[in-house]
Amino acid sequence: MKNPANYQPLTPIHFLQRAAAVYPEHTAVIDGDRRYSYAELYRRCRRLASALRGRGVGRGDTVSILAPNGVAILEAHYGVPMAGAVLNTINTRLDAETVAFILGHAESKMLLTDREQSDTVRKALAMTSSKPVVMDIDIDTDDPAAARGELLGGKDYETFLKEGDPGFDWLWPEDEWDAISLNYTSGTTGKPKGVVYHHRGAALLALGNLLSWHIPAHPVYLWTLPMFHANGWCFPWSLSINVGTHVCLRRVDPGSIHEAIRRHGVTHLCGAPIIMQFILDAVETLGRPSERVVEMATAAAPPPAATLGAMEEAGFHVTHLYGLTETYGPAVVNA
Amino acid sequence: MKNPANYQPLTPIHFLQRAAAVYPEHTAVIDGDRRYSYAELYRRCRRLASALRGRGVGRGDTVSILAPNGVAILEAHYGVPMAGAVLNTINTRLDAETVAFILGHAESKMLLTDREQSDTVRKALAMTSSKPVVMDIDIDTDDPAAARGELLGGKDYETFLKEGDPGFDWLWPEDEWDAISLNYTSGTTGKPKGVVYHHRGAALLALGNLLSWHIPAHPVYLWTLPMFHANGWCFPWSLSINVGTHVCLRRVDPGSIHEAIRRHGVTHLCGAPIIMQFILDAVETLGRPSERVVEMATAAAPPPAATLGAMEEAGFHVTHLYGLTETYGPAVVNA
Repeated sequence: MKNPANYQPLTPIHFLQRAAAVYPEHTAVIDGDRRYSYAELYRRCRRLASALRGRGVGRGDTVSILAPNGVAILEAHYGVPMAGAVLNTINTRLDAETVAFILGHAESKMLLTDREQSDTVRKALAMTSSKPVVMDIDIDTDDPAAARGELLGGKDYETFLKEGDPGFDWLWPEDEWDAISLNYTSGTTGKPKGVVYHHRGAALLALGNLLSWHIPAHPVYLWTLPMFHANGWCFPWSLSINVGTHVCLRRVDPGSIHEAIRRHGVTHLCGAPIIMQFILDAVETLGRPSERVVEMATAAAPPPAATLGAMEEAGFHVTHLYGLTETYGPAVVNA
Repeated sequence: MKNPANYQPLTPIHFLQRAAAVYPEHTAVIDGDRRYSYAELYRRCRRLASALRGRGVGRGDTVSILAPNGVAILEAHYGVPMAGAVLNTINTRLDAETVAFILGHAESKMLLTDREQSDTVRKALAMTSSKPVVMDIDIDTDDPAAARGELLGGKDYETFLKEGDPGFDWLWPEDEWDAISLNYTSGTTGKPKGVVYHHRGAALLALGNLLSWHIPAHPVYLWTLPMFHANGWCFPWSLSINVGTHVCLRRVDPGSIHEAIRRHGVTHLCGAPIIMQFILDAVETLGRPSERVVEMATAAAPPPAATLGAMEEAGFHVTHLYGLTETYGPAVVNA
């Protein structure tokens, strides 16, 4: 059957509109010294959508981003589809040749690129068939390890946002089966393959994350999982549903994880098994970061019993998930 | 856009299949002395669907039920749509003339009717234009207040179930916009008006109930809200998602509510404001029924501050909702 003419397509970007309307003052994101409330995040995402439209990005066009976890890539998860466009997050660990292949295959119209990625991106842009408009994400970080490569684009991200209208009447998808994002597999068995997510699937998996992990209202969620990885298993969208706080780390290491949990009262995090090792290392030297039990979800192979036991002793309850890029992230949970 | 040919329509009846697969032994329903696990409930619902098909009930046909909260009306929420049919729950407080109007307007092919309703139903059947096959829900209750009227149909519900196959390969909706239920408004301003729920809406509201009320895994849910009222706000379907236990009361009064909470460790209930008065009355004479805080959701006008305060003191946390038959139950929550 055709969908009714007046139906409301399922889309996860709508969740942000609601969060901003109901909890405008609640902290949406913490990224280093920067903090934005839901009202602010929503305005910035509308600015991004509006600025993209102003630069000619239209329905179905691809916008790529190469950035570590932070405000910009979170905003791209809303602002890009709010322009009717398709978000293509690129793994920051890829080499220039692979990035060039992806930019070309995705026919990217615009590329947002963090200065940490400048070397790779400069080389990739010289090799790719697509000629995206480039904007630099130029964060003034006090992290001495954060390389700040050359500026490649005409403008930096924050200045680009100013081109946009914070009250922009963003574009709903015309249909819930429209694409919201385009993720490339890692190319283990050949060229990376593109996986297209639709608004409906992203909305349902974002809801499913909360239900299958039983996440209550207002979680404080630590980003150790890269958002470029299967759209962070849809958690960039999940948190708007129950109005949580995204805590972003530019660099993931034992000390920064420990400090973030302690300082911001983190309640939930997802990560690869290596993150558990980071946590255990930090607990050994710095003690437990939280008096409350912290919920952690991990994918890949089932963690060994010894690791699970050590994590429990360190104050972490571990849930084991499994998924694929092709399944919007976690498709199976160990209940 | 047309839905893809191979898409999986959203439907809440699928939630039961998953609950039975993942938690077969978990108690699904407690109704007096009867208890069924999720595996048993799922088998009984498939029996019902199969038995309905065997009696010629087909896609889009209406099956009506007149029954207090209990196993039969819960099963009807799954078994009827599993036959491809549309569930029509009828308010047990209506007079014979209104019941006759509904049966006729709904063109009911079958009517499941509790013996408590025999007087009304006998009169209604004499007046209605539709000639449904009648099955009696004949529960051997030790409740002396439970009137057991005459048997009206050819068979009782339990015997009818035996006509069905517990392994029946139930019918998915062909389309998620297909009807799952038909509820009539109370007719305050004229004849009752039929409201059709589709599978998609019921699935989404069933999910929304858990998310907006932040219900964790395995709630023990007390039925004081009638399931005939807007399909119990979709809670008959919600509980299969996070694998909760339905506690049914044939008769709702202060003593039975108190006893059920105490005995079964109820964690959640929904009800009209009068239920809060019942609870407060019971607490006054019998004390607090639970050491844990019990979550209660109530609709209608906002409860007075004094009532909320008294409920809190009695160990209940009250959430205020609002909705309509036309919105599948609660559409708004006081966040």
